[in-house]
Amino acid sequence: MSNPTAAMLVIGDEILSGRTRDANMYFLAGELAKVGIDLHEVRIVRDDREAIVVAVQSMAGTYDHVFTSGGIGPTHDDITADCVALAFGCEIDVRADARALLEAHYARTGAELNAARLRMARIPDKATLIDNPVSVAPGFSIGNVHVMAGVPSVFQAMVASVLPTLTGGAPLISETLRIDRGEGDIAGPLGALAEAYPALSMGSYPFQLASGQYGANIVIRGADAALVRSAMDKLTALFKA
Amino acid sequence: MSNPTAAMLVIGDEILSGRTRDANMYFLAGELAKVGIDLHEVRIVRDDREAIVVAVQSMAGTYDHVFTSGGIGPTHDDITADCVALAFGCEIDVRADARALLEAHYARTGAELNAARLRMARIPDKATLIDNPVSVAPGFSIGNVHVMAGVPSVFQAMVASVLPTLTGGAPLISETLRIDRGEGDIAGPLGALAEAYPALSMGSYPFQLASGQYGANIVIRGADAALVRSAMDKLTALFKA
Repeated sequence: MSNPTAAMLVIGDEILSGRTRDANMYFLAGELAKVGIDLHEVRIVRDDREAIVVAVQSMAGTYDHVFTSGGIGPTHDDITADCVALAFGCEIDVRADARALLEAHYARTGAELNAARLRMARIPDKATLIDNPVSVAPGFSIGNVHVMAGVPSVFQAMVASVLPTLTGGAPLISETLRIDRGEGDIAGPLGALAEAYPALSMGSYPFQLASGQYGANIVIRGADAALVRSAMDKLTALFKA
Repeated sequence: MSNPTAAMLVIGDEILSGRTRDANMYFLAGELAKVGIDLHEVRIVRDDREAIVVAVQSMAGTYDHVFTSGGIGPTHDDITADCVALAFGCEIDVRADARALLEAHYARTGAELNAARLRMARIPDKATLIDNPVSVAPGFSIGNVHVMAGVPSVFQAMVASVLPTLTGGAPLISETLRIDRGEGDIAGPLGALAEAYPALSMGSYPFQLASGQYGANIVIRGADAALVRSAMDKLTALFKA
């Protein structure tokens, strides 16, 4: 049985303008690999209604799970929740359960629960809240789409809240061999080995040292640890110095 | 007149598996902002023929330029050049001009120009080569798609080769104000200011300090420096301590 598939949608002008370097994608990719959910695609789109709706619909229809990051805060450029509701043809408004979380939080901190902050309680009708232990304002899951914040500490906490509720697959086993030769010398034998192990994925990731020396990290991945080990033994024998 | 639009397609299992943190997207986003080409979307897909072909066709039909990163080396998982040729319905084979570059290079270094290395001379019929001053094996442009290597030093050199050949627009002017208050306090006045300046984009990027203090960086972007300055003056006046 193959693993569940996933996609990630990052919403944010700040990534596309080169201002901010995304951190959430790298984090989520690692967490999904641990639980055996295969991340097949990532898209990054602008804070633009149509771009978000089209991407959510396309990805939700293609993959088992879609994880979004960004655009659920209190400011005018936070439009993700409304766009996801639109993508599902679902009503959205300030919801009592989310509002109660915010009221309790701001009663504690003394800040005012003004109109802007109340925007963070806008949750689609049929959605389930995702717990936010960092800053309270919740994310939500609707259908197979999980909507989370863009601030890395909050995103990570929400991923930790939502992943245990999902059914994973076989965690991906991965082994790496560093070979200090150019990829052009490695490619022939590696290609033959990859053909002999169709159940495994073998990737070659080249590097160049400051000395000018070329090399590559060869990564063998698969769900079957014994098979990965067997292929790695053969690879090592092929390229032992 | 609005700026040319662009999208980026990153090809690579190593990013989606969480093994490698992408660096090329952040670099390209910054370079495009400098020359006034607006990056609207990024997609990351697996080393999978159909996924690459579908993404290239969709993005090439939507944006003025598409930049790809990864999958043009000598190993079996390097399938980008063939996929791009397929997307354009174009023949691809080892091409004399690219082969000559590799022959001269390997004659100098003494390495063998074997079958694997020759794969790097596979270039679609109608493509124009992109110069690679780092490791010689070229990228190429076909139609509005620019195909470049995934190794960051090579990717960066290829971007430097191709960008001067493209017509840019007005570089994006960007100013940032850090406000040490929660976004919930900022959102109301900021939203009103954003409505008063429809030609500008205003983004709010929240942070939390280790002390627990919340704040946000407010970024105002636009092509008109005087307009950006005027809006920034008003924003500063709104939130002066």
